[in-house]
Parts: sequence; C-alpha cells; structure tokens
Amino acid sequence: MGALQPVLDTLDRDLDKSLERLFSLLRIPSISTDPAYKAECRRAAEWLVADLKSIGFEASVRDTPGHPMVVAHHDGPDGKNAPHVLFYGHYDVQPVDPLELWEDDPFAPAVKDMGAGRRIITGRGSADDKGQLMTFVEACRAYKAAHGGMPCRISILFEGEEESGSPSLKPFLEANAAELKADFALVCDTGMWDRETPAISTGLRGLVGEEVFVRAADRDLHSGHFGGAAANPIRILAKVLADIHDETGRITIPGFYDGVEETPTDILKSWEGLGLTAEAFLGEVGLSVPSGEKGRSVLELIWARPTAEFNGITGGYTGKGFKTVIAAEASAKVSFRLVHQQDPASIRAAFRDFVRARIPADCSVEFLEHGGSPAIQLSYDAPFLTRAKHALSDEWNKPALMIAMGGSIPIVGDFQRLLGMESLLVGFGLDDDRIHSPNEKYELSSFHKGQRSWARILDALAKG
Amino acid sequence: MGALQPVLDTLDRDLDKSLERLFSLLRIPSISTDPAYKAECRRAAEWLVADLKSIGFEASVRDTPGHPMVVAHHDGPDGKNAPHVLFYGHYDVQPVDPLELWEDDPFAPAVKDMGAGRRIITGRGSADDKGQLMTFVEACRAYKAAHGGMPCRISILFEGEEESGSPSLKPFLEANAAELKADFALVCDTGMWDRETPAISTGLRGLVGEEVFVRAADRDLHSGHFGGAAANPIRILAKVLADIHDETGRITIPGFYDGVEETPTDILKSWEGLGLTAEAFLGEVGLSVPSGEKGRSVLELIWARPTAEFNGITGGYTGKGFKTVIAAEASAKVSFRLVHQQDPASIRAAFRDFVRARIPADCSVEFLEHGGSPAIQLSYDAPFLTRAKHALSDEWNKPALMIAMGGSIPIVGDFQRLLGMESLLVGFGLDDDRIHSPNEKYELSSFHKGQRSWARILDALAKG
Repeated sequence: MGALQPVLDTLDRDLDKSLERLFSLLRIPSISTDPAYKAECRRAAEWLVADLKSIGFEASVRDTPGHPMVVAHHDGPDGKNAPHVLFYGHYDVQPVDPLELWEDDPFAPAVKDMGAGRRIITGRGSADDKGQLMTFVEACRAYKAAHGGMPCRISILFEGEEESGSPSLKPFLEANAAELKADFALVCDTGMWDRETPAISTGLRGLVGEEVFVRAADRDLHSGHFGGAAANPIRILAKVLADIHDETGRITIPGFYDGVEETPTDILKSWEGLGLTAEAFLGEVGLSVPSGEKGRSVLELIWARPTAEFNGITGGYTGKGFKTVIAAEASAKVSFRLVHQQDPASIRAAFRDFVRARIPADCSVEFLEHGGSPAIQLSYDAPFLTRAKHALSDEWNKPALMIAMGGSIPIVGDFQRLLGMESLLVGFGLDDDRIHSPNEKYELSSFHKGQRSWARILDALAKG
Repeated sequence: MGALQPVLDTLDRDLDKSLERLFSLLRIPSISTDPAYKAECRRAAEWLVADLKSIGFEASVRDTPGHPMVVAHHDGPDGKNAPHVLFYGHYDVQPVDPLELWEDDPFAPAVKDMGAGRRIITGRGSADDKGQLMTFVEACRAYKAAHGGMPCRISILFEGEEESGSPSLKPFLEANAAELKADFALVCDTGMWDRETPAISTGLRGLVGEEVFVRAADRDLHSGHFGGAAANPIRILAKVLADIHDETGRITIPGFYDGVEETPTDILKSWEGLGLTAEAFLGEVGLSVPSGEKGRSVLELIWARPTAEFNGITGGYTGKGFKTVIAAEASAKVSFRLVHQQDPASIRAAFRDFVRARIPADCSVEFLEHGGSPAIQLSYDAPFLTRAKHALSDEWNKPALMIAMGGSIPIVGDFQRLLGMESLLVGFGLDDDRIHSPNEKYELSSFHKGQRSWARILDALAKG
C-alpha cells in the first residue's frame, strides 16, 4: 500500500467537503430513545450506507427489532498480511430537550469561529458520535482517493441504539459473529485528555440503568382532604433515593461494592501526576466540591469508583403555579456506574431489594430495566495499542496518554465476550463538548486531526 | 317575606333549568393557575354578573391585578330586621392534567346515571366550586321567582384566584371593606360528612405553599464523565425532602410544631364516635396505612394535625427511555397544612432555613412563594350556626354534624381579620368528588338538595 503523506494531504485539501458530508448526517435527527424519530434513525443508517458504498465498501442496512445496523466491508491490500479491523461507532443521538437552552438549532449544524484560531462544529451528535465516526470514514475516503484502496482489511459496524441501551446489539453480534469477527476492534466514542493531548482509554465504567415507579392511591388526591393520612409517593421515592448514599458519599445498597478493587498505588500516583484538581475539573461547569466518596481524588472518583446517579425524577403537578395534589405515582430514572468486577445483574437485584424494603405495605413499586453492562479493563501493552499510541503522538506532537473513562461503552465488553476481540479506544472528544446536553459541539481541530490520526493509525497497523 | 314552601317547590320544578345554567358555567375553562386561560377566567366572571343581574342583583366585574372579582348586592325585605349576609365562592378551577385520565371532556359537563337512583354531574369545577356556588345562586333565584325578592340583605363575592393562592383577595377586601362587610359570611366550598349527612365545618387547616429550586452545575452533565464528582440536584433535593419527616411521621423542621395544640379529649372522643376507621377512609382510594404521625386517628391526622406534603417534583430527563444526564436543576412543590396557632410566615422561614442548611457550598437554592394562610377555628355555638344546623337537619332528615376540615379556605381567616366577620361553612361536596383530580364530579343530589338547603338556611336566618 502507498505512503501516508498523500493521504494526509488529501485530508487537508478536502476538509471543507468532509464538513459538508458531516453536516448532511448531523441534519438527520436520529434520536433513538424517542419512538417519534424512528424513521429518522433509518434515514441516518441509509445515508451512511450510501456514503460507504461511494468509497468502495460493500455496505448494507441490516434490520433489527429496533433501529437498524449498518455493516460494511472493504478488502485489504492484495498479498499483504495486513490486519483485519472492525470499526465501531453509533449514528443515533441523545434527545435535545430542553430545546430552549440551545443557542442554535440542534439539527442545523454550522462551524462557529470562537476566536484565537479556534473553530467548533455545533449540533446534536457533532461529538457523540457522528463527528467521531466520520473521522474514520474520512480517513478511509482519503486512502481510497490517494491509493485506490484501504491499507488494511476493514469492516465497519454502526449501530443506532447506543443512546438507548443497545437492546439489539448482542443478538446481532451473536447472529453475525463470523462476519463481524476481526483481529481487533477500533472504537471511536471516547475523548482526548485535553485540547492538545491525545489519549487511549484502557478502562471504562460499566452501567446499570433502572426506572422505578412508586404507586400509592388509585388516583390523585387533594392534599387538604387526604394530607397526613394518605401515602405520598413523592415522599416515599425521596426517602428511597436519599437512603442510597450515606453521609460520606458511600453507597449503602448491600453488596454494592462486591467486586470493587482498590486502584493500585502506582496508578493513582500516575493520575495524580496529571495535576487535575477537583477545582479545575468541576470549575468548568460551575462547581467545586466533589460529591462522591470522601478522601478520593476527582480522577479516581470518575475513573475507578462506582456511582449511583439520579438521572430524572417526576411526580405530581409540575406545571406553572401550584396544585395541592397528592400524586398517585412518582418515578425516577436511576443509573449505576460500575467498575472492575461488579456484576450488573447482582447490582440491579440488590437495588430492587433495597427499594422494595422501603415501600409501605399499601403502596407498590415497579421497575423498568434500561440496559446494563459490566466495567472493562483493557491491557496496557497490546502491540496494536503501542502502535496506535505512537501514531497519535506523531499527529498531535505530544505523547498520547493512557487513561480511564467514567462513561460506559458496553460494546467493548460485548466484543470481548461474544467475538473474542480486544478494542482500541481512540476518540477526539473534549470534556466541554456538552454531549447529552444543550449546545453540543465538536472542535474542528478534533474533526480534522481526528481524520489524520486515523490515517496514521491505519498506516501504523498496516505496517504491523 | 313569603313562606319557604313555594321556594322549595320552585327549586324542584326548575332543577333541569338550573342544570343548564350550571353547564354553561362549567363549559368555561377558567383555570386560574395557567396564564393561557386568563380570558376564560374573565368570561366566567362576566357570565356570573349577567346571571346575577337577571335575578335582580346589582352586580359587576371588578378588576384586580390578577383575575377579576364578581361583586353583587341585593336589598333585603323592607321594614324587616333581617341580617345582611355575604356569600363567598370561587369561579376558578384547577388544571385538568393529566387529561388522558379523564373519562369525559372536563369542560363538556353532563349528568350521568350511576344506577340505583344516583346521578352525578361530571366536569372540572362541578364540585369545586362552580356547582357549590350555584346552589346558592339558585336558591336566590327561587326566592325571586316565588316572592319577588330576597329574605335577607345579600351580598355576593366570587373570586377567580382561589386555586392559585388568592393573591388579589386581601388587597381587594381591604380596599372594599365598607362595601363587603356584612353580619356574617356564608361560604360554600366544603363538604358533607357522607352522602346522607350534612355538615358544618368549624375547623380549617391553614396552608403554606412553597416551590424550591435546587441548582448545581451551570449545565446538564453526562453522568459518565461527571458522575461521582459533580453534585446532582435530584440527590440533594431527595435528601432535603426525605429529612422533613422522621421515622414516626413527625415533621423535623425546627419550630414547626410551635402553636400546635393537643385536641381536647372530648373532641377526639366525638370524632371517634363517628366510627371512621383508617381502613374505611383510605380504602376508598386504594390505601390502608395512615402515613402521618403514629398513634393518632385518621380524623385527627386530617382535621387537627399539621402536615408537610410534596405536591410535585421534577428534574433531569423525564421522557421515554433513558438519558445518562446529571441535571443542572431539580425542583419540588411543597405544601404545609397548618393547625391552631401555627404562623405561616414562621413556617415558611423555618422551611427555607431547613433547606438552605442542606445545600452544598457549590450549589444554590431558590424559593417561590405559593400562598399562605393560618388555620381557622370557628365557634361551635354562634346563633347563626345553630339556626343553619337546624335548617340543614330538616332538609336532609338527619342531624347535621359539626366537623373539621383538612383543607384550607383562606378567605375565612381574611373575613375574620379584615372585615371582623365570622363565617358559616356549609357545603355539599363528598370525599369521592375527585376535586383537583381527573374525573371531578358533583352529586346531582348535592346540587339539588344544596339549593333547597340554602333556601332553608336563608329562611331560618331571616326569621332570626
């Protein structure tokens, strides 16, 4: 296969065209959690298939019981023993409410000049994950343009349910294991250490999502007539949630910490060496006091400790003004971030027992499962990881860091268990990208140097 | 003034016409808490003025900074020393959400046959308070038809902000004290003891309404990136709410019970004599376990003990599916029912201090006031009360009971303090009327016998 430089030159020359392509994809409101956008999810999948076909991939939309998958394949160079990689990304995006907090239409992407040479790409999905997955597609396109083909054998899997718990993913991987199995996976859904420093993620927290509905009376009641006598589901729910953390921020659910290991001192030391204080990390979002377990650094809290978070709560009258009502029902969305060997099924069962023990005899509780995945710890010294680290360091002119991540990427565990494949987690997101929030953005530099980074990584892997 | 029987006969004969009039009023969606219905509130006021004029009242819509008042006057009989009464009701209604739980359009009233001779009037406001206030207007109309005038001097005050904390009421009473002052007030916004037993309410709980907003980060955060480090306002709010009650159901806010008296043993005994068990009272709404202070009867809990209730809560993602977000804000609507000498301003201040003490240093809290009124205890033996008791007992063929009420009617305290007037609280609502809830109804028997009850009460008062 040909040299790297013509590929990089192509990427530099075609940046504007690559932006136009990204904008086309960002304009599709592929919100997977909201059934109203089902057709839009399919449209995003179809757009990707057409784009991949245009650069020589054999690509197809593959139906699932939920939103479709995109699967594509491209041969590697003839006669060379280049590896076979499976690239993974997701084309679905988070909901956009509260819409009134967006400065720009979330589905009308644009490049905004922020001054001092910094430009950003605005819009829902710009960072999570459409902008990221397109860095890889653009690198492939440039190889095609510069050399007529790919430097490795490349398979691609894009899913459309990552933001809604990936219900179709495992069955799909199981049913198509032979087709999807590669030497290892490339996953582009993570971040850099900071604006200038690339990173490879080797640790990922797991996730258990639960929704809990507390039900009391068989109708809404007047709080004057029934207050003091009738059970109030908001009060019951508040007590349940309040009981989950003790005064030190530790989670009180019995058995919750089973499988959690203390992080080795040398690793903690290396994280301390990064010099990130709680004030600096939280200061960017207007906070200053770590809310988790006392006596642990902010990096340990987000990278190596499990959490219980309340992601949503609703009950009673929530409109303008006041209504003296005792609601019939209150509900909350609760998630747990898992580390090390914590078992999602055990955590879910322990949580449900914990809640049930706090429901009065005349009330009831119901649970709705919202996905679950164990935590992941990848090896620090696989050869493909070392090669990628050098390639990233070359592009960014700074040594790439090996870091952990607070978020979950369940696919990495699925690749391990179902396809026997390790993953390389490289991404170009930043902490201030506001993914899952109003005003999501992606740095133009992430998009451009991300493309170049993948070109370099593919080159390094091909040279094996 | 003429005899009672022709008035009662008129009411019996004209029941269908009186229903048509009530339906016209019920069709107006005069929801006072929602600014979108401002014009509808005025329309309801104008409807009432036109109706009162049609039966000889001097009536007018009176502007306030909020929704207008209706004020009307009618002379009493010449040369007789009949009392001057001020009748009070409210034409505004509660919001109707969740609309999908209504079996019928809340603003398309109808009479429904429930079998066994029982019929109900359906629709928002049928019981609270349009149906109730029209029982009095119909009694006046029948006097006009039968005898050409009223048996007493009658003034009427209808407000349009009762369901939103009555912000304009006190200034209006103060500014129009001379015009509105009567010998005593008649207030029709309360209930019967049960379907067959009329009641006069002599105790009313007060109310303090508060909305509390807890704010943490300056934007919504991804729970993967920030979970375990960033403050979660839902967690903070849940802890605040959970702290308000102790294990025995007692409220822990310092000073909350100042001014609360123990109910005299003989009164508690008389309530016990009514034979209402917790199982029976709560069983009607699908519950069985009293949620208030342990060791007190359900009637004591709702009539003579203060409460803290959570009327609404919201925060984070509350749509379908799941969003791994840490919200920037969470809020709750909280109300306190007061008894005896509890001071609304002190309770509000104590609550705010209680909340503030539980907000982390890097978070903030804001409060929105939603009305406040002290509790009321009326005398058991005023002459007008004794006369009304006999009139009610005659109509219902059962001795009227002297009861207390769990709800608040702030106007009664305002009449005491601002106009030096006691109130007679007579109403025909039932506990299962679902006021403030979907499927509000009013018994047709309440509407009809309510009209006849007021005719009898006016007759008894006129005979003084």
